[in-house]
Amino acid sequence: MTDKLPDGFEPYGDNAGFGAAFGPVYLDSANCAMGFFVGPQHLNPIGGCHGGAMATFADHQIAAVRHLVGDGNVHLPTVSLTVDYLAPAFAGDWVHAAVMLVKVTRNLVFSQALITTRGNIIARASAIYRNYTASA
Amino acid sequence: MTDKLPDGFEPYGDNAGFGAAFGPVYLDSANCAMGFFVGPQHLNPIGGCHGGAMATFADHQIAAVRHLVGDGNVHLPTVSLTVDYLAPAFAGDWVHAAVMLVKVTRNLVFSQALITTRGNIIARASAIYRNYTASA
Amino acid sequence: MTDKLPDGFEPYGDNAGFGAAFGPVYLDSANCAMGFFVGPQHLNPIGGCHGGAMATFADHQIAAVRHLVGDGNVHLPTVSLTVDYLAPAFAGDWVHAAVMLVKVTRNLVFSQALITTRGNIIARASAIYRNYTASA
Amino acid sequence: MTDKLPDGFEPYGDNAGFGAAFGPVYLDSANCAMGFFVGPQHLNPIGGCHGGAMATFADHQIAAVRHLVGDGNVHLPTVSLTVDYLAPAFAGDWVHAAVMLVKVTRNLVFSQALITTRGNIIARASAIYRNYTASA
Repeated sequence: MTDKLPDGFEPYGDNAGFGAAFGPVYLDSANCAMGFFVGPQHLNPIGGCHGGAMATFADHQIAAVRHLVGDGNVHLPTVSLTVDYLAPAFAGDWVHAAVMLVKVTRNLVFSQALITTRGNIIARASAIYRNYTASA
Repeated sequence: MTDKLPDGFEPYGDNAGFGAAFGPVYLDSANCAMGFFVGPQHLNPIGGCHGGAMATFADHQIAAVRHLVGDGNVHLPTVSLTVDYLAPAFAGDWVHAAVMLVKVTRNLVFSQALITTRGNIIARASAIYRNYTASA
Repeated sequence: MTDKLPDGFEPYGDNAGFGAAFGPVYLDSANCAMGFFVGPQHLNPIGGCHGGAMATFADHQIAAVRHLVGDGNVHLPTVSLTVDYLAPAFAGDWVHAAVMLVKVTRNLVFSQALITTRGNIIARASAIYRNYTASA
Repeated sequence: MTDKLPDGFEPYGDNAGFGAAFGPVYLDSANCAMGFFVGPQHLNPIGGCHGGAMATFADHQIAAVRHLVGDGNVHLPTVSLTVDYLAPAFAGDWVHAAVMLVKVTRNLVFSQALITTRGNIIARASAIYRNYTASA
């Protein structure tokens, strides 16, 4: 399906552990965006994208704004993640997230994402991450 | 690892799609509890349980209280899921969630979970699901 | 302080009960914006705007997008409100919220707000309201 | 109405600013509980307790567990507050919150509350506060 990958997106290199179970997530860091294709491994029992899969995708949002946060490649652990589910996504859909870095404080990083497929908002997500860059 | 499965827990039968990618979740419906063993497929790049995996587990909480909600086996889609991450979990850990059914309204089901490993709270989660049982 | 009221804002007419205790909130519905001046009645024990006052302001966000939701003046009760506090506000500050109507479903209305003072983001808020317009 | 004040509750001394606008909140610190009487100053336009008033009450939860957190009387600012509204409260109601201190980390304090009136759950709230005690 990567022939449908929109311009500007590159695979994000988290290919072990739960990143491998989820499958590829693509980043367009220049635009603070990320995306993935809903595959059979993301579905819930009624054939839509599983809430856990959407939450997993949403938890990646820090990767799309990581270059704006600060030094290095230090892992920034999630403190809080909220996902509101507005409409379903289905197998084959390209799911796009526009990520906003809202605030960086000494201890925390706040970001949020609007998640769309074919132009329709299907989820929104807010996240707080632990900031290790500023205290370094 | 199932030889370590605590008494009263049974596998939850969501073995396709994202349920299969995640791996077994166990329910103790009589006690509104659920659990899973952190496996290699749940890890993040620094070797702890991935935030997305914990969110996926947390999204299962409706299954642990589903029998208290109402008729039938209708899928209740997630409206909102919030997970706060308090401490890491590691490979081999048994992760236990004590789930509370907080309220059932005509349109919505509210539940929450305290998630522990070896007696320490490692996450809390609040969820809102769409209620289809009451309007049936 | 109303001589400093930005162009386009009009007082919102919720002048009884907790609306009166809080004091004036101003709407610029054409731009889905709202604002208030931090007064002595909004302060916390250390002289900043009280978290409860900011949450109360954030709960007004439905008023700023109410005209986009649907028919009539039916009160849409809050289902869920989340406020993240990013920086303090102080007495005399004009606090501005840019509100976005994210989604209207048959039963629920999802909105969110970025709250600023003097151009700095000081809070973000996500809300879910019960939708009575669509089922009328 | 204080003749109806349940045993064990004492007024919480936040009587200026927004605390004064809200009116008395009562603490039973020994039981990690707090409460208030819904008064005319708490109502929304349709005669129920205003969502902002309930959020303001919920934001007080740190006071009910403050003695468990650590040294001193340092103000712990709110980082995140989520309130889910499950049923209305009305003028004259005694609103009770059972507060749980979930976790204290070096930088953050996590608590949550179940809010009831006459035995019915009417709201739940999760909060994260900035911890200044541990780094002192």
